[in-house]
Amino acid sequence: MYFHALIPYKPINPKTRLSSVMTQGEREEFAEVMLGDVISAVRKTGCEATLLCTTRYACIETRVAIRKEGLNEAINWALPQFRCPALIIMSDLPLITPESLRRILSTKADMAIVPGLGGGTNVIFVKHPETFHVEYYGFSFRRHLQIADELGLNVDIVDSMRMATDIDEPVDLVELMIHGRGNAREWLYEHGFSLSIENGRTSVTRNGEKLS
Amino acid sequence: MYFHALIPYKPINPKTRLSSVMTQGEREEFAEVMLGDVISAVRKTGCEATLLCTTRYACIETRVAIRKEGLNEAINWALPQFRCPALIIMSDLPLITPESLRRILSTKADMAIVPGLGGGTNVIFVKHPETFHVEYYGFSFRRHLQIADELGLNVDIVDSMRMATDIDEPVDLVELMIHGRGNAREWLYEHGFSLSIENGRTSVTRNGEKLS
Repeated sequence: MYFHALIPYKPINPKTRLSSVMTQGEREEFAEVMLGDVISAVRKTGCEATLLCTTRYACIETRVAIRKEGLNEAINWALPQFRCPALIIMSDLPLITPESLRRILSTKADMAIVPGLGGGTNVIFVKHPETFHVEYYGFSFRRHLQIADELGLNVDIVDSMRMATDIDEPVDLVELMIHGRGNAREWLYEHGFSLSIENGRTSVTRNGEKLS
Repeated sequence: MYFHALIPYKPINPKTRLSSVMTQGEREEFAEVMLGDVISAVRKTGCEATLLCTTRYACIETRVAIRKEGLNEAINWALPQFRCPALIIMSDLPLITPESLRRILSTKADMAIVPGLGGGTNVIFVKHPETFHVEYYGFSFRRHLQIADELGLNVDIVDSMRMATDIDEPVDLVELMIHGRGNAREWLYEHGFSLSIENGRTSVTRNGEKLS
């Protein structure tokens, strides 16, 4: 089956909730490395992708559409233009693997969705995107189930820790450092991040200093 | 296939990392409700269970073995007695469903394992438990992979957010309140817990007071 991935991406000053542990330059570099891991997994499933970028950005592996409006508006601008199923996937999911993506893409339902930790939405696969629309932010997972329900779509909720783990805050780096297989994990180790355990809690340290 | 589940359980003063948000009596009640959800999911897969309890405890649905030693010692006392595959599962996984369990039980590998968030081990399914041993605490996920490797077992790592989410700290209640389908979620709502979102972060409140 042919489908196309849509990956929203903010090249400038991304991941501000990591500001306490990375400079702006580091956050931009780290976000780009995570994006690379996501694109790599997507392409290994045989899928092409388009980045939806807030500013000019060059990517040799994908098309880039520059959309200055918000996340929802940008995606909802793109969806009616689809003539094939759409995979809407966030760029901060560096634990994703081709195998986990295939669990979504092989759904028999009209749509598959992966909730993010905390009630957000990390991945949506919708077979007829031209009639769908998204509403990210807040408890978007429930909202997307409602939208599907209003459209009469049956939905497959995919239970995946790898795809549920979006990297927003220092504590999220723990899972990436344990389970990552791509370049984002390497980037963290190369930049002085490591793991430690104290009283049964795992935390991230950088150059010996505890961060989460 | 016949197999038997082993569920370690501490009836007295459990879940001490929830002490800031629940009294001891509430923690004991909540731990028991979570255990009930786990037992219910296990039994729906057609499996019997034995609880490994630190103190006397009555459970009408399962056998109970009282073992006063530590978690590892208790499990490693039980494993050599198995004459069928063993499912070793923690009692604080109230998001577990029969469907998620079946992903483990249907493995073609010698063993399946589900990592917990933070590097722990939440579920192990091992077809020849009499030669296996466990080493919980700390980064036990990696340790269990090493043990399997030393025994020449091939291992299926099951990617599941539901089974990765063990309830230890107030922040863990978020996922239970969003995705729970059993009695543990109901218990939280009945006891004044609710969810709120602020600046994109989901947190738990109790009677209006922010807890995580």
